[in-house]
Amino acid sequence: MKRTNWLTQSVLAALIFLLGMSEIAAQETVDAVMKERGLTDKDKLAAVKTFMPRGGRDEYFALVGTGNSGTMIIYGIPSMRIYKYVGVFTPEPWQGYGFDDESQLLLKKSSLDNRIPNYGNMWFPAFSETGGKYDGKYAFFTDGSNARVALLGLDDFETKQVLSNPIMNNLFPQAVVTPNTEYVIQTGQFPHPWKNKETDMSKAKNALTFWFLERIEKEGEHKGRIIKEKSFAVEFPPYVLDYNDVGKGASDGMFFGLASKDGKYYVYAVDYKKVAGMDKLMFNNFDYVPFDKAKSAVSFIELPAKASTLKVSPDGKYVIVAADEVVVLDAAKIKSNLGKNVKASDVQHGTVAIGNNVVDVTFDYRKNTAYASAHDDSKIVRFDYVNLKKKDEVKLDFKPSYLMTPQGLSSEPHSNYLVAVDKESYVKNLPSTGPVRPSVQHLIDISADDEMADIYTMTLPQANVYGNVAILRTTIKPIIRYPTGTNSRTGEPSPFRTLAGKERVEREGNRVHVFGTLIRSHIVPEIVEVNEGDIVTFHLTNLERAEDETHGFTVDTYGKHGSFEPGKTASLTFVADRAGVFPYYCTEFCSALHLEMEGILLVRPKGYKGKTGEMAEKLTPEQLAKYKEQYEKKVEVIKQTADVINGVVKYLKENHYEKYPYVKALVEDAVDQLNKAKFAEENYKKYAKEKKWKDAFLWAEQYWQYQVKAADVGLRAKKLLDEKLGKEE
Amino acid sequence: MKRTNWLTQSVLAALIFLLGMSEIAAQETVDAVMKERGLTDKDKLAAVKTFMPRGGRDEYFALVGTGNSGTMIIYGIPSMRIYKYVGVFTPEPWQGYGFDDESQLLLKKSSLDNRIPNYGNMWFPAFSETGGKYDGKYAFFTDGSNARVALLGLDDFETKQVLSNPIMNNLFPQAVVTPNTEYVIQTGQFPHPWKNKETDMSKAKNALTFWFLERIEKEGEHKGRIIKEKSFAVEFPPYVLDYNDVGKGASDGMFFGLASKDGKYYVYAVDYKKVAGMDKLMFNNFDYVPFDKAKSAVSFIELPAKASTLKVSPDGKYVIVAADEVVVLDAAKIKSNLGKNVKASDVQHGTVAIGNNVVDVTFDYRKNTAYASAHDDSKIVRFDYVNLKKKDEVKLDFKPSYLMTPQGLSSEPHSNYLVAVDKESYVKNLPSTGPVRPSVQHLIDISADDEMADIYTMTLPQANVYGNVAILRTTIKPIIRYPTGTNSRTGEPSPFRTLAGKERVEREGNRVHVFGTLIRSHIVPEIVEVNEGDIVTFHLTNLERAEDETHGFTVDTYGKHGSFEPGKTASLTFVADRAGVFPYYCTEFCSALHLEMEGILLVRPKGYKGKTGEMAEKLTPEQLAKYKEQYEKKVEVIKQTADVINGVVKYLKENHYEKYPYVKALVEDAVDQLNKAKFAEENYKKYAKEKKWKDAFLWAEQYWQYQVKAADVGLRAKKLLDEKLGKEE
Repeated sequence: MKRTNWLTQSVLAALIFLLGMSEIAAQETVDAVMKERGLTDKDKLAAVKTFMPRGGRDEYFALVGTGNSGTMIIYGIPSMRIYKYVGVFTPEPWQGYGFDDESQLLLKKSSLDNRIPNYGNMWFPAFSETGGKYDGKYAFFTDGSNARVALLGLDDFETKQVLSNPIMNNLFPQAVVTPNTEYVIQTGQFPHPWKNKETDMSKAKNALTFWFLERIEKEGEHKGRIIKEKSFAVEFPPYVLDYNDVGKGASDGMFFGLASKDGKYYVYAVDYKKVAGMDKLMFNNFDYVPFDKAKSAVSFIELPAKASTLKVSPDGKYVIVAADEVVVLDAAKIKSNLGKNVKASDVQHGTVAIGNNVVDVTFDYRKNTAYASAHDDSKIVRFDYVNLKKKDEVKLDFKPSYLMTPQGLSSEPHSNYLVAVDKESYVKNLPSTGPVRPSVQHLIDISADDEMADIYTMTLPQANVYGNVAILRTTIKPIIRYPTGTNSRTGEPSPFRTLAGKERVEREGNRVHVFGTLIRSHIVPEIVEVNEGDIVTFHLTNLERAEDETHGFTVDTYGKHGSFEPGKTASLTFVADRAGVFPYYCTEFCSALHLEMEGILLVRPKGYKGKTGEMAEKLTPEQLAKYKEQYEKKVEVIKQTADVINGVVKYLKENHYEKYPYVKALVEDAVDQLNKAKFAEENYKKYAKEKKWKDAFLWAEQYWQYQVKAADVGLRAKKLLDEKLGKEE
Repeated sequence: MKRTNWLTQSVLAALIFLLGMSEIAAQETVDAVMKERGLTDKDKLAAVKTFMPRGGRDEYFALVGTGNSGTMIIYGIPSMRIYKYVGVFTPEPWQGYGFDDESQLLLKKSSLDNRIPNYGNMWFPAFSETGGKYDGKYAFFTDGSNARVALLGLDDFETKQVLSNPIMNNLFPQAVVTPNTEYVIQTGQFPHPWKNKETDMSKAKNALTFWFLERIEKEGEHKGRIIKEKSFAVEFPPYVLDYNDVGKGASDGMFFGLASKDGKYYVYAVDYKKVAGMDKLMFNNFDYVPFDKAKSAVSFIELPAKASTLKVSPDGKYVIVAADEVVVLDAAKIKSNLGKNVKASDVQHGTVAIGNNVVDVTFDYRKNTAYASAHDDSKIVRFDYVNLKKKDEVKLDFKPSYLMTPQGLSSEPHSNYLVAVDKESYVKNLPSTGPVRPSVQHLIDISADDEMADIYTMTLPQANVYGNVAILRTTIKPIIRYPTGTNSRTGEPSPFRTLAGKERVEREGNRVHVFGTLIRSHIVPEIVEVNEGDIVTFHLTNLERAEDETHGFTVDTYGKHGSFEPGKTASLTFVADRAGVFPYYCTEFCSALHLEMEGILLVRPKGYKGKTGEMAEKLTPEQLAKYKEQYEKKVEVIKQTADVINGVVKYLKENHYEKYPYVKALVEDAVDQLNKAKFAEENYKKYAKEKKWKDAFLWAEQYWQYQVKAADVGLRAKKLLDEKLGKEE
């Protein structure tokens, strides 16, 4: 702030009186902090645009392929906080992806020869669409290095399917979908002889793959899957293939991509609906259309220079190519030239000179408006692609490469933010963390019609970032729990699901199946005895229904880890080839009783002579007395809590809670919690009768946990009811 | 802001004149954004306290163990941006950790029976110390589930060593160090019979492990390693062991921890210097002191209630225990009771009632000042642990658990920030990302003497977070490159390092060694031919010297990935059991010529009859002509760039740059770049003579890259010299 003169100071003094001391003081504190931290007024504005207040919700969820990690990043816009890494092509230990049998099976299916690559190179993701709009059901990724495709469910943000491409050894690391997600499309990148041990490079080819999605969806269940048998490929000549996009609206049924060969650069266009109807041959048990047939539905459009990306405009009328200048192609003209090879000038609407080395373009909701990154000029230009005119630009202190506007690839782009990938400025912009630093991207505020501003520099660790996609957060309706006993990878009930009281160990020869349950304070069973060399599977079901009440599970030194979200059943299989005593326990902080969730695996050494079952825990009389005392205290607390609940219930009934739908829903929730608690109550009473004071205490504690949840919901219902009745405090 | 009345508005009108339109406009914009986003004045202050301006540097680096992922998180304070995930106990694909031979060997050494757990459960990390102060050399982690210890070098932020505990199957997931890092100390958690196939639970015990660190350090080289042969353990009775800390200053030589047994809770204290000098027995080839001997140097102090952590005060005089109330023990009194079992009241300085369920305490630089988290009361209390008085508190909207102040575990805590782990409020505070959400922690501003404020909610994905440690960022001096040909895991020259021009393929039977190099635009060799079933190793050396000029490497479908930071040599070994053609390439965006870094692995199928070497790339006459044209253009650019450089050099010489040390250093850098470029120049001239135009072009491009770097540094030197000479623009 400029130095204020004495007159200003007098006026300020008056203002202090008028506005009240505290506000001025607050402002002075802000100024002092800004001065100390070297912030400008622009920084302050950027700070309030991106700061997420407690409990605030981001407007968008963005997905990124990590490039080198094989995992997906989910972050929020505008806070740019990272919420989750989700294992896609690579095992991910936190959620046990690639560690439990269910996700291992899923990954095994991604191999044609029963060997699973542990690594994935994923750049540009895609969201599923309905009528060209994001529907919030699925996301798709391509693993370029290992030629795989993945489907993620956005109901639970888990990977549901990974399949190997039957034709190509490498792919361009991008997934795109047709406007109703009939197909997920992948292209090869570097041409080579198709996958059948052929090594003669003169037989090098390429291929486009159209994976068919069968959509099976209802409320809270997104069970759509790719059906290999209904998918097909299109043989393609040995061009190097690059970025691509799908037609929509005016260009529905078309697919557009970049290709190069012998130092020449092309856009290719394919009428995929026409090709889909053609007769097919088979390669590696996969349908394909030979290029000789397909070529009548294909056009090559020679470009004057190398291009980096192309994007179809939201209405589908134009294909906009990012090259030395921006080349706007007319989709209708392209369509009328199918089967022919033409020059860009034959099918173009026009060009716009943007700057040097345009890497990418993206759209917003404003009419005919797009953005281009002029990499070498360190700027982003807003332009009109119909009237072929620059509108305005923002000069940056980095070289922008790939761009993303929320929903910018759908027919419904939004107009507030733009994310620009920064491949080169991190040395300048970030502190050193050794010889390699994270990926970086910037959030640009594009909400004003006449101005753009770079407002946040985001780091993306464990990644080599290329592409983002972002969706309005509220379009995604995540579930908060599974039906009890669900295999989350299939969405079906697991054959290994186990209910409370049905826990057991089954043995057949050296194969041991442990059917166990997880719930706050208990892993059941608490002791498992096996023989050295046995093949052991822990099939565990999380019985919780409370939100985010996730339990983790591991057995010491056996290196297996599972994450059990409420309702999930998963299985961990290992060979018990180390004899000894191995504690197992919950690895996710789940409640104050987290540390009680512990048990023991006893692996008897080969040649062991003792009798089995001697492992049952023996408590000393002192320990028993202590647990009895704790149990009795807890029963007292349970009684007091029950009184509170009864009081609330009485009040709610007297005031006709059932007339108010939201209050009624809360009450039902509370009653539901108490009903679920019944088995815990039965257990604690049973164990008390048997004088098993430790179990009695732990189950009493468990019952009380349910009770507290019920009381909490009941009190919220009461508060809401009071508000409705005008009895607010 | 309150609605302003007409009088205020008049004054504001005057102010607009006095302060100038733009500032008021800026303020109004900030106000409008705050209104739209629902931000309070407190939020605004928090925003400017945490927002990181472009190019800004965080004051601290914090490290976190991810709990379930086996990787380490590095983030900055106060921006709370995550900079890196580093693989520690679990393979991490981005940096090829657990994928290349060097890191696989490191992980293999972490197994006692040649089986590597792929998972790690790591909670509380430690920084290395010298004289009780953080020295910025190493960090240490303990894997609780798989009983391992890890050493990371803070020179390059890579894991250098992982070792298996020879005695325990599980450990409390914490690492602590002695004041000069003579030892890294681990304790077991759940007692069990020691690791030797024993299954009789009546023989359950515990153990403390003192890993000896041999420190070998010089400028830019931190080669300290744990020496197993000089390490030892202390046998311990079958207590469950929990959080611990090491004495310093007044309590130097002591180790303190929490223990429980039969429903009773203790602090135990060990004079480890005394124990280290005792005679030892051997178990699994590891020295240990039996408890019968050690117990004369051990004391058990019974606590009135269960405790969660204990921390030694910065001066070492007190051991502060977080329990129902805060119990301050007097270290001198503890020391005088070694060999005895006592009550807390016998050795305590006093207690402070803080609130319900105190989970953790931490220190800052203010005299006698500590902070405690009263979990159940949702507050953090600042208190005086010598005068046993509360000072002030901050009420939070979450339940705080573990606490961290930067350098708070050293003898030199800082006084500005506090990080509080939040295990329970994420359901309320974060948008739903399906049934499981990330870990959360909060940044609390404690810089004011009389007030604390919660200013940021940070998400920690792929983690179940317990403990943080933070160090002044500038204490760490990261290297930006390795000496060319370094095995980064040992810090030694790799026997497989390869210099430019020495690339080759060596074969012995079915064992194929590829000695290759990586540099912008080239992977050499560009074609490798092997037979199906060969065991192939790519030994690659990154020849770059430029900052962050990292190359990645993968071979399609073979699922191996390496990260090659400048100077690094690493090896990727696989069985070439799939026949066909497999492109390999650079996976990290490295420059505009990134896509040129490509080659081909040809795996000849079993029974292949053709001759070898037929794979050499054949260019068409058109392609050759195109490359020739590009080459000639580039040579022209090289000449122009040389003119610029010569002009700068002349100017610098004329103005006696050598008088100004920093300018001189820059000029030496620039000359160094040009000297390094010589081999590229020789190559492009050689290939041009041979009319190999593609190679000629790519090497010319390479030469130009060096030239541009040199020119860039030269121009920076000139600018600096101009400033020194008062010739600023």
